[in-house]
Amino acid sequence: MQRIEHRACFGGWQDVYRHRSEVLGCEMNFAVYLPPQAAGGAKLPVLYWLSGLTCTEQNFITKAGAQRYAAEHGLIIVAPDTSPRGDDVADADGYDLGKGAGFYLNATRQPWAKHYRMYDYIVDELPALLEANFPASTARSISGHSMGGHGALSIALKNPGRYRSVSAFSPIVAPTQVPWGEKAFSNYLGGDREAWKQYDTVELVASASEKLPLLVDQGDADEFLDGQLKPQLLQAACEAAAHPLTLRMQPGYDHSYYFIASFIGDHLRHHAQALRGKAAAR
Amino acid sequence: MQRIEHRACFGGWQDVYRHRSEVLGCEMNFAVYLPPQAAGGAKLPVLYWLSGLTCTEQNFITKAGAQRYAAEHGLIIVAPDTSPRGDDVADADGYDLGKGAGFYLNATRQPWAKHYRMYDYIVDELPALLEANFPASTARSISGHSMGGHGALSIALKNPGRYRSVSAFSPIVAPTQVPWGEKAFSNYLGGDREAWKQYDTVELVASASEKLPLLVDQGDADEFLDGQLKPQLLQAACEAAAHPLTLRMQPGYDHSYYFIASFIGDHLRHHAQALRGKAAAR
Repeated sequence: MQRIEHRACFGGWQDVYRHRSEVLGCEMNFAVYLPPQAAGGAKLPVLYWLSGLTCTEQNFITKAGAQRYAAEHGLIIVAPDTSPRGDDVADADGYDLGKGAGFYLNATRQPWAKHYRMYDYIVDELPALLEANFPASTARSISGHSMGGHGALSIALKNPGRYRSVSAFSPIVAPTQVPWGEKAFSNYLGGDREAWKQYDTVELVASASEKLPLLVDQGDADEFLDGQLKPQLLQAACEAAAHPLTLRMQPGYDHSYYFIASFIGDHLRHHAQALRGKAAAR
Repeated sequence: MQRIEHRACFGGWQDVYRHRSEVLGCEMNFAVYLPPQAAGGAKLPVLYWLSGLTCTEQNFITKAGAQRYAAEHGLIIVAPDTSPRGDDVADADGYDLGKGAGFYLNATRQPWAKHYRMYDYIVDELPALLEANFPASTARSISGHSMGGHGALSIALKNPGRYRSVSAFSPIVAPTQVPWGEKAFSNYLGGDREAWKQYDTVELVASASEKLPLLVDQGDADEFLDGQLKPQLLQAACEAAAHPLTLRMQPGYDHSYYFIASFIGDHLRHHAQALRGKAAAR
């Protein structure tokens, strides 16, 4: 594991590491923000941030402004890349399949199955790496944007007890029912739609054994709202299953990082309360 | 004037406009953040932000996280591009001359003199455009980074009474004495070093009629500190001229936007106090 960026930021450090992922079979970058409290030696809780289509580990750390709040609350933030990378990793034309579009699942069809195992990477390999090499406790939360919102919600629902809290911005909540998900799942998982359901938040809510509350922000001027995101499907599923959901429709906001930056402070406070067991100090 | 971006951000709007600049003789983009208070119809004070080498109007608005503070204080922020643009505008090899490197001066040598008049654009044309077309009062402040820190400091010192406050991050304070400035000024202004002094902050401080306090943040891990920035020259000039300077050496910080993001809140509070005549509400 090699540190390739190291930048002072809000009293802590915004770092980027490069490592060999055994699960993905390639070199991967991930970003980690270490707040000022990390210098004290105590283990700190960790928020995992999953980014959306086309992103790398850079988008969130340069545009969301989350470090300010992480420094206030004493949270580590880990932002991984969105797919396996490298010349021998399969790719496709289009921004919504292949590199930059891992969809946080384990692919079962070739040529994808060899490297596209982002689910195992996010759930197991990356936390183990963090907890072994950084002042990171096992108190974890997870959040993300768009494809990464899908990742955060579906991973939290599939792993009861593993995350203290979960939230999402503009998530793909029903990938089995929208074009982005249908394209990705049919390629990565094949034609059996039953096999898709294990990665679909709306399906997972229906059978969730743990009622972890979901916090979701969605801009009502989001250009993907009607065609790809469909938060009303999540709302209906949560109502049917009595699963706690806070869905905030934010008037005027679009799908961009300007939206994320505007409300990331609320999400970090939500996670800090779950991770630290108390209202965090301002 | 055409609006080409319009994004909800911290309760206001982060917009980008494209217009024909008469001074520069080309089409230019500029960014303007309109805080929530702009919806009320009252005229609001304006902070001009000047970016550094290689930047466009995008860098500051996507990376600095300043909108949060502008929304708190009720400030408009205007972030122009860093040089004239377009196919018929002269350019050079290298990132530190030509497009993206206007140095906020009026060039007198060809081929630069035709379009490179960023000084007049920033001081006169852009504020006139803002004050005529936006809810912008004539209460102005100015700030910037690196080459833009040079621009902010030199423009404020050359125009007593025009700005209520000035600040800079990692500014080039003595362009006549460092490689970036020597290359730019010899090309834009020619070989007569006397003509360079009108754009050199250290020179301008020595004869400033108005003692506008200077707020400067500088990272001590900045890779350009010793070769290009030399804040000790500004410190000595201010001491010699009894010009008020707050120079904050920030331990561990580099030249990046992570540094700017970490302290932009302090700068916006400083400007808000000058612009609004009182400590702004948190």
